[in-house]
Amino acid sequence: MAETTNTPVTVLGLGAMGQALAATLLKGGHPTTVWNRTPGKDTDLGAAGAVSTPSVAEAVQAGGPIIVVLFDHASVHTTLDPVVDELSGRQVINLTSTAPNEARELATWAAEHGIDYLDGGIMAIPPMIGQPGASILYSGSEAIFNEHRTALELLAAAEYFGDDAGRASTYDFALLANMYAMFGGFMHGAAMMRSVGVSASAFAERAAAWVTAMAQMFPAYGELIDSGDYTQPIQSLAFHKAALDAINRASRDAGVATDFVAPIKNLIDRQIADGNGALEFARTIEELI
Amino acid sequence: MAETTNTPVTVLGLGAMGQALAATLLKGGHPTTVWNRTPGKDTDLGAAGAVSTPSVAEAVQAGGPIIVVLFDHASVHTTLDPVVDELSGRQVINLTSTAPNEARELATWAAEHGIDYLDGGIMAIPPMIGQPGASILYSGSEAIFNEHRTALELLAAAEYFGDDAGRASTYDFALLANMYAMFGGFMHGAAMMRSVGVSASAFAERAAAWVTAMAQMFPAYGELIDSGDYTQPIQSLAFHKAALDAINRASRDAGVATDFVAPIKNLIDRQIADGNGALEFARTIEELI
Ligand SMILES: NC(=O)c1ccc[n+]([C@@H]2O[C@H](COP(=O)([O-])OP(=O)(O)OC[C@H]3O[C@@H](n4cnc5c(N)ncnc54)[C@H](OP(=O)(O)O)[C@@H]3O)[C@@H](O)[C@H]2O)c1
Ligand SMILES: NC(=O)c1ccc[n+]([C@@H]2O[C@H](COP(=O)([O-])OP(=O)(O)OC[C@H]3O[C@@H](n4cnc5c(N)ncnc54)[C@H](OP(=O)(O)O)[C@@H]3O)[C@@H](O)[C@H]2O)c1
Repeated sequence: MAETTNTPVTVLGLGAMGQALAATLLKGGHPTTVWNRTPGKDTDLGAAGAVSTPSVAEAVQAGGPIIVVLFDHASVHTTLDPVVDELSGRQVINLTSTAPNEARELATWAAEHGIDYLDGGIMAIPPMIGQPGASILYSGSEAIFNEHRTALELLAAAEYFGDDAGRASTYDFALLANMYAMFGGFMHGAAMMRSVGVSASAFAERAAAWVTAMAQMFPAYGELIDSGDYTQPIQSLAFHKAALDAINRASRDAGVATDFVAPIKNLIDRQIADGNGALEFARTIEELI
Repeated sequence: MAETTNTPVTVLGLGAMGQALAATLLKGGHPTTVWNRTPGKDTDLGAAGAVSTPSVAEAVQAGGPIIVVLFDHASVHTTLDPVVDELSGRQVINLTSTAPNEARELATWAAEHGIDYLDGGIMAIPPMIGQPGASILYSGSEAIFNEHRTALELLAAAEYFGDDAGRASTYDFALLANMYAMFGGFMHGAAMMRSVGVSASAFAERAAAWVTAMAQMFPAYGELIDSGDYTQPIQSLAFHKAALDAINRASRDAGVATDFVAPIKNLIDRQIADGNGALEFARTIEELI
């Protein structure tokens, strides 16, 4: 079936993210039916033309794909289990953040009930929805993805990662883990700079440029990791140990707790203790698996 | 004294970094005298026109600034203490990585012996020296920085941070801390992706683009931190706790140890336990100081 701009869509969940998604679909010309557990979140959407229903059962009767954007895995079951019969033969696109095995559980549950299931991980905050820079990673039902791709692209750049429903979620949380570790490092650096009277804003500009430049190392590390050969180091674990020891001293001089540099230092020290100091730093990944 | 391209320079230490610095100075037309503890590291430099001396005392007689690029703080003293009398009235530019208080100790030691002292932190690896993208952060003697700025700019973009000799080092290690935390996060993410058969190289490209985009949050966090007011959150600690809990589940599903996400999760949990869950995430910096 070819996508038309007026495919009806249902959005279950009108938190910050659900509201942003529904508003963007409405703006894109999709008849949009919305539902939220607690009433009162539909005022702006109603004014923009959304149909608001008091029950999930009524919401899913609108036809078209059902976008679910609730708090967590448990709230998805709480919301969908009571209407499982109505959902048979229908398409569910779950954008609630769920861990890979939670997404896989939902896909299995859906298959058992004749529901077509696409899982998505939203790489954006609500104000970014519908704007350049936002992306949503999908896996699970390719049929849903292909049929509704135009509508999905209204929300954010849409990418499909195969039929394992847990794969998009793995990507999502792998990227978020990278981001949170980087944010921790930023706070460590900003805390150090406070000790010499430099503002966090002043540090922020320099740090953003610096980590952007240093992220250009990722592909080189990626190649080394994929090769599995750590004997031709870009720089050895022993080299990085010296740097981490100096960071620890510098942090102490600045009166900053080392929570965010301790893990990398500990994993480097462990490899050196195992006799691997001459090997490439990127070998650290092998300590995690 | 105006800088001319033929200011003589001495480089003490011909490790990977010392060789790169000396080679770049030679290429820039500076008569360059070099010394290294262990002989044999001067072959390429000698062919390029460097004067190599067997002793530190002879090396420093060449006149001009003395660039020191040794292993650590202790090796700087081991090398310079025996020639402290010859150094009186001279200019030392120490590019050895030293913690802030180590740089301050060297500045005090230098002042006591009539030596002008500039400390620098090199934000580059040896092949980047003399290339765009390399930078060196300086603090300590402004006179040395101003007099030799043209020569210093040959090596890398040169920036001066004031007369506290420990300040450039603080910047240096604050940036490195941010980088290492980010590298740890990259390894965590790449390890997760291995569980679903995605190569580290494939993850690397996406991760580099993602962290580059997310580093654009630093200035907003910087402003919040500088304001000291965490009551108007971009997103609350409680919001981020939900994400970190999901990352932990996703990591467990992927069989990946949580070393690199545990610190941020722990600091968020601690703040929530203290009753601060509604406050802005960037407040996490206050837990470090
Ligand atoms: N906000 C972001 O930046 C962002 C980014 C990426 C992904 N996400 C994901 O998007 C999803 C929604 O996020 P959000 O920002 O919209 O969260 P939110 O503002 O906290 O909204 C949560 C939504 O879930 C509903 N809900 C909670 N528990 C429920 C239950 N037991 N049964 C039925 N409904 C329940 C809430 O309904 P009530 O109004 O009745 O409480 C509300 O609609 C989450 O999985 C989140 O991880 C968010
Ligand atoms: N390489 C980088 O990517 C990089 C980046 C930024 C900053 N740095 C900093 O630059 C400095 C030099 O780094 P590098 O890469 O050139 O290191 P390297 O290749 O390991 O060289 C170390 C140098 O220090 C000398 N040395 C060590 N102990 C000594 C002692 N007790 N007395 C006298 N000389 C001694 C060595 O002499 P021998 O040949 O006799 O052993 C050699 O010249 C370090 O502080 C490093 O942190 C390096």
